[in-house]
Amino acid sequence: MIQLPEVIKNAVEALTKLPGVGEKTAFRMVLSMTAWRPQELETVGAALSALTGLQQCSECGMFADEDRCSVCANEGRRSARVLCVVENASDLLAIEKSGHFRGLYHIIGGVLNPLLGVGPDELGLDDLRDRISDREISEVILAINPSVEGDATCAYVKSILPEALRVERIGFGVPIGGSLEYLDPMTITKALENRKRF
Amino acid sequence: MIQLPEVIKNAVEALTKLPGVGEKTAFRMVLSMTAWRPQELETVGAALSALTGLQQCSECGMFADEDRCSVCANEGRRSARVLCVVENASDLLAIEKSGHFRGLYHIIGGVLNPLLGVGPDELGLDDLRDRISDREISEVILAINPSVEGDATCAYVKSILPEALRVERIGFGVPIGGSLEYLDPMTITKALENRKRF
Repeated sequence: MIQLPEVIKNAVEALTKLPGVGEKTAFRMVLSMTAWRPQELETVGAALSALTGLQQCSECGMFADEDRCSVCANEGRRSARVLCVVENASDLLAIEKSGHFRGLYHIIGGVLNPLLGVGPDELGLDDLRDRISDREISEVILAINPSVEGDATCAYVKSILPEALRVERIGFGVPIGGSLEYLDPMTITKALENRKRF
Repeated sequence: MIQLPEVIKNAVEALTKLPGVGEKTAFRMVLSMTAWRPQELETVGAALSALTGLQQCSECGMFADEDRCSVCANEGRRSARVLCVVENASDLLAIEKSGHFRGLYHIIGGVLNPLLGVGPDELGLDDLRDRISDREISEVILAINPSVEGDATCAYVKSILPEALRVERIGFGVPIGGSLEYLDPMTITKALENRKRF
């Protein structure tokens, strides 16, 4: 069998770390890259290395060019009194894409998971509580995904916040475009519980 | 809508240049990379940039660590008198993986395509002819993919080689594991033409 150059092997190994990229896909990518101009290869390499320079917003934890992300730096949104708590940047972007939330966000970076050693300190839940009081937040929306750990995280966050504060969790039920026929019993149960007068 | 940092946009743009990676996939990759350690990001960036240092085998055109690829540098294979002509490195690797060819290779880098300005000079077909005579090759196997351009390329290569030289083209027909039911008429025609006494 032919012996491949080290640079090829290294590039394949590096690309397999990306989500959804196995060895075969990575190899196909690298093979096509061998036909690229040096300039293009340098650009891709530099663009990925440059992610090390990515900063976190000092307020919400979203990634940012500067000290603050564009939501926290937005004057119109800074005055918002509604704070949406999300697990990660992808979830934040999904909500932002829906275009119907004009408040502030707070990324906690995960959910409570004692088995993996993720406790309230790792999620910075004290900082969340401090931010809520500093910013005079009047409503907290917990946009935490539904799971055992997610439910526990919501319960814990609620327990450390002032009783008077309005705390809500996003609604669960049948997704738009979904079909009852193909949904799991848990979602159907939630959809029935969350029915609304029509 | 939230404004994403430049480094994110650059990384997404860079990854979309990879085959099979659209903007959504690239974005998902970059989002997951934001959780990587700086060291890991540097490694991936460097591994891809390092592809610029990839050398070509001075004999067959395959990529190589040094001046010659591992096939051309292999003493046992250097003495082979059979040369397999392929379009590119991927095709060479596919043949090598089958494990049944022990001769030498020659990569021509494509097929003749006058509309795209690819003529005999671009494919280095004179070099191919010279190598065949220098190495005293007695048999040439054209492992060029079947297409109008591929067929023309094979005809041209045959025309510039000595009449006495044995020139063959790989066989076309039903792939192993394939089903006649799902094959195109052209392949079936070829399979009938290439039938063998059983």
